[in-house]
Amino acid sequence: MRNIALLLEYDGTRYAGFQLQKNALTVQEVLERAIRHIFRERLRVHPAGRTDSGAHAVGQVVNFRTSRAIPLQKILPALNSRLPEDVRVKRVWEAGASFHARFSARGKVYRYTVLNSRVARPLLRASTYHCPDRLDISRVRRAARLLTGRRDFRAFEGARNRQKNAVRTLRRLRVKKRGELLEFELEGDGFLTHMVRNVVGTLLEVGRGKLAVEELPRILRSRDRRQAGPAVPAKGLVLQEVRYATRESRAAAHPAGQSRGT
Amino acid sequence: MRNIALLLEYDGTRYAGFQLQKNALTVQEVLERAIRHIFRERLRVHPAGRTDSGAHAVGQVVNFRTSRAIPLQKILPALNSRLPEDVRVKRVWEAGASFHARFSARGKVYRYTVLNSRVARPLLRASTYHCPDRLDISRVRRAARLLTGRRDFRAFEGARNRQKNAVRTLRRLRVKKRGELLEFELEGDGFLTHMVRNVVGTLLEVGRGKLAVEELPRILRSRDRRQAGPAVPAKGLVLQEVRYATRESRAAAHPAGQSRGT
Repeated sequence: MRNIALLLEYDGTRYAGFQLQKNALTVQEVLERAIRHIFRERLRVHPAGRTDSGAHAVGQVVNFRTSRAIPLQKILPALNSRLPEDVRVKRVWEAGASFHARFSARGKVYRYTVLNSRVARPLLRASTYHCPDRLDISRVRRAARLLTGRRDFRAFEGARNRQKNAVRTLRRLRVKKRGELLEFELEGDGFLTHMVRNVVGTLLEVGRGKLAVEELPRILRSRDRRQAGPAVPAKGLVLQEVRYATRESRAAAHPAGQSRGT
Repeated sequence: MRNIALLLEYDGTRYAGFQLQKNALTVQEVLERAIRHIFRERLRVHPAGRTDSGAHAVGQVVNFRTSRAIPLQKILPALNSRLPEDVRVKRVWEAGASFHARFSARGKVYRYTVLNSRVARPLLRASTYHCPDRLDISRVRRAARLLTGRRDFRAFEGARNRQKNAVRTLRRLRVKKRGELLEFELEGDGFLTHMVRNVVGTLLEVGRGKLAVEELPRILRSRDRRQAGPAVPAKGLVLQEVRYATRESRAAAHPAGQSRGT
């Protein structure tokens, strides 16, 4: 049995998230449809992360198992010729037998982009959230530092799919100002539902002066979603990268070292 | 009579260009509709440049004349509240009586972005042209140098709206490589119909090795459109900036120096 991994980019605008749904179009649906056409069998793909409705990815990873003998180098062009133009396979490799896009992941990197300008920018509207308010970036940065590290992020978890354990390690929360753009880059060992959007929404409240930097420790301790700020919209969110440690799956980052799993 | 100037950004994907058309939606139509609603009169706007169907702008300038006494600072929010989200007014100012967005322009800057990667990028598909071919950038740059300066660009002019005089000064044609993106920045005193797209299309042929760098002088001399390369698609094209020299219109670049015309 082969275990095939794919690196995906998609514009999530048109999709109700990654995961299959009964009454809405999802990325999983169009991907599995393309795979079914090429492999001539119904296969289930496992994503590294279930992105939200309207959220994007430049580094989503999925895997699926098959016994079909289609040569590796034919899979990428075949899938892309069947996929809609807002979803693309950027890399294909054979992963080791035990590789699972989600369970093997050691970390993920998300980017959230805020357009902080008086007037919205038409060319950026699909991938940024427009915040016209005046923001104090140094306050945002101080608050961001209080959220990094190993913490219980229950107060930043959405209502659906609540996890038993909300402790996660946020290794990095970088706030970068590039002209009118404010980019938040979050790297962690795992993220709860809506966690990135709730964290960024809370940091913007700090930037607006509606929440004091010093409130952050109290919000974390409360483990109460209502204490944190409102979530920002999904369209500013991009799953940038999924990190793996095991040899089989590291082929994702180092295509030269692609190994043929069994 | 007031002469009001607007700085515009738009995502041209949905539009059949800037200029009014009988049977297709254009930027001018949605803009004049918004102006009619705010000013309560039918007004004609004059753009600095008529962008192609599907082409974008971050620095289009238009002007229109009115005798209505709406305060300057109310115009921008009022127009933006009536415009579709793919068109935005970024700045409004009162121009001098003689200012005309097109005739007063001393120069324009266009940017054309090519995505030079094996696989297309969903998140960049609205504003870049995907060219998967291997390109020799040093050849592209050498050819670009042969096109700068004061030249007869007839061979790079589209079939429609042909000008009597095709001599233009291309002050700058910069080719910048940023990862998988290849950006062409063109600054000139004026551009013929489809000139940017024909120039970039020809430079890509040079990059592919299908046209020798040394052919450029011959193509220019031929004044024959069929000698140059094919036009690249409009979606990679953005009107970046319009440059003015006169005092009234310089307010565009220096909003602090806004003057109230009469």
